[in-house]
Amino acid sequence: MADNPTAAILIIGNEILSGRTQDVNVKFIAERLAALGHKLEEVRVVPDVPARIIRAVNELRAAYDNLFTTGGIGPTHDDITSECVAEAFGVPWQKHQATWDALERHLGAENFNAARQRMAMMPRGAVPIPNAISIAPGFSIGNVHVMAGVPKIMQSMFGTLEQKLGRGTPISMRAVHGLRIKEGSIAAGLGAIQQRFPMLDLGSYPFYRESGGGVAIVAKGTDAAALDAAIAEAELLIVSQGITPVRGEPAI
Amino acid sequence: MADNPTAAILIIGNEILSGRTQDVNVKFIAERLAALGHKLEEVRVVPDVPARIIRAVNELRAAYDNLFTTGGIGPTHDDITSECVAEAFGVPWQKHQATWDALERHLGAENFNAARQRMAMMPRGAVPIPNAISIAPGFSIGNVHVMAGVPKIMQSMFGTLEQKLGRGTPISMRAVHGLRIKEGSIAAGLGAIQQRFPMLDLGSYPFYRESGGGVAIVAKGTDAAALDAAIAEAELLIVSQGITPVRGEPAI
Repeated sequence: MADNPTAAILIIGNEILSGRTQDVNVKFIAERLAALGHKLEEVRVVPDVPARIIRAVNELRAAYDNLFTTGGIGPTHDDITSECVAEAFGVPWQKHQATWDALERHLGAENFNAARQRMAMMPRGAVPIPNAISIAPGFSIGNVHVMAGVPKIMQSMFGTLEQKLGRGTPISMRAVHGLRIKEGSIAAGLGAIQQRFPMLDLGSYPFYRESGGGVAIVAKGTDAAALDAAIAEAELLIVSQGITPVRGEPAI
Repeated sequence: MADNPTAAILIIGNEILSGRTQDVNVKFIAERLAALGHKLEEVRVVPDVPARIIRAVNELRAAYDNLFTTGGIGPTHDDITSECVAEAFGVPWQKHQATWDALERHLGAENFNAARQRMAMMPRGAVPIPNAISIAPGFSIGNVHVMAGVPKIMQSMFGTLEQKLGRGTPISMRAVHGLRIKEGSIAAGLGAIQQRFPMLDLGSYPFYRESGGGVAIVAKGTDAAALDAAIAEAELLIVSQGITPVRGEPAI
């Protein structure tokens, strides 16, 4: 996976840090990035505070090939992502005429108030990311892709965006699990499999459910033959414990 | 909330970055921290890579009063949080005798293999965080609190830990919502309320559901009288739109 483009997600949202809202955007973006062959390397959540947003945008856009942000692009006082991204890039925050016109036409001039006009402001050079749900777009500037926090809108924006993103070799996962397996009993064997397949990431994840717990072994990587071979070895490791392995993830 | 202790969460887990696992630990810790009066200021998710973990631990423990980590403390090859925290603090990673003895007694000497012995290793000076589910503890060192990634075990560890954490003034939330409210129509009024209550964080969150969407207005802070007054003003703002406000969050 060394050649896959890298990515980070920045979640701008007091509502995640307060515990009000359960984030579901990371899992969605992570799965889609894996399918596109992009490697998600970091996620950060920061509050709606300009200095914090600007610093995180600049650190993450420098460190990774693409940065995806969610949240803070609506019309209210706590929606400050757009001007913060302009500041991070050192460019003016200005009217995006086509977006302005589209919003004014859709809402009617009498409803296109100062708050809503903020949604037509973008960093100079930004390219809108349309979506199927709201007239107000996200935008891309350089390697930074600014999306809504509302999952349905974000998902539509990501769908627009991914057609423009480059492709890496898709990152696949294979899994096998066994009931009553103890991690400590298979750790040495699993470590040995990882050493034989250095091009893969092998993980071991205990699961707990009413009908009985166990361990899932998950292999992740871009080499399909290696994935199949590693999971076959993981199956034998489970068999060596006197347990019947089951392909795939456990149903929870 | 300026006087509240600050906190960060570091999630160590390839399984979150790959999209395999939906994180639920942030919301749990965030809610409990708010009740304890600690202000969660940042969350990061990093992969199971030593340099990345060490750097994130050092940046976050320097920036905030407390750092809570989840994940990477089991017996397998990808469980490297403990030695990384030792490295971050520049102290030896060594046998914690009481934990070693407890694990050996519980498992039996014949099952206490090299992989499981790793769970009895801690940075020098660490204090175990017992839990009700597993014999293997988490640990605290300085202002860093290292917990399991499995939610049930993490939650039990946090329960142990919170008795030792200092208390700040609890951070409360109040909410009111209105159906068919448009954010753009109330943005100016809401911004004015925020200006009148600078000690609070006011947020506005659109919601979508089959029976009809709207907007929730949420106020967060430590000043109960201010919270009540701000939410009363938010109610009037909703009324001014010809909509009947409903106290609390919308049921989804």
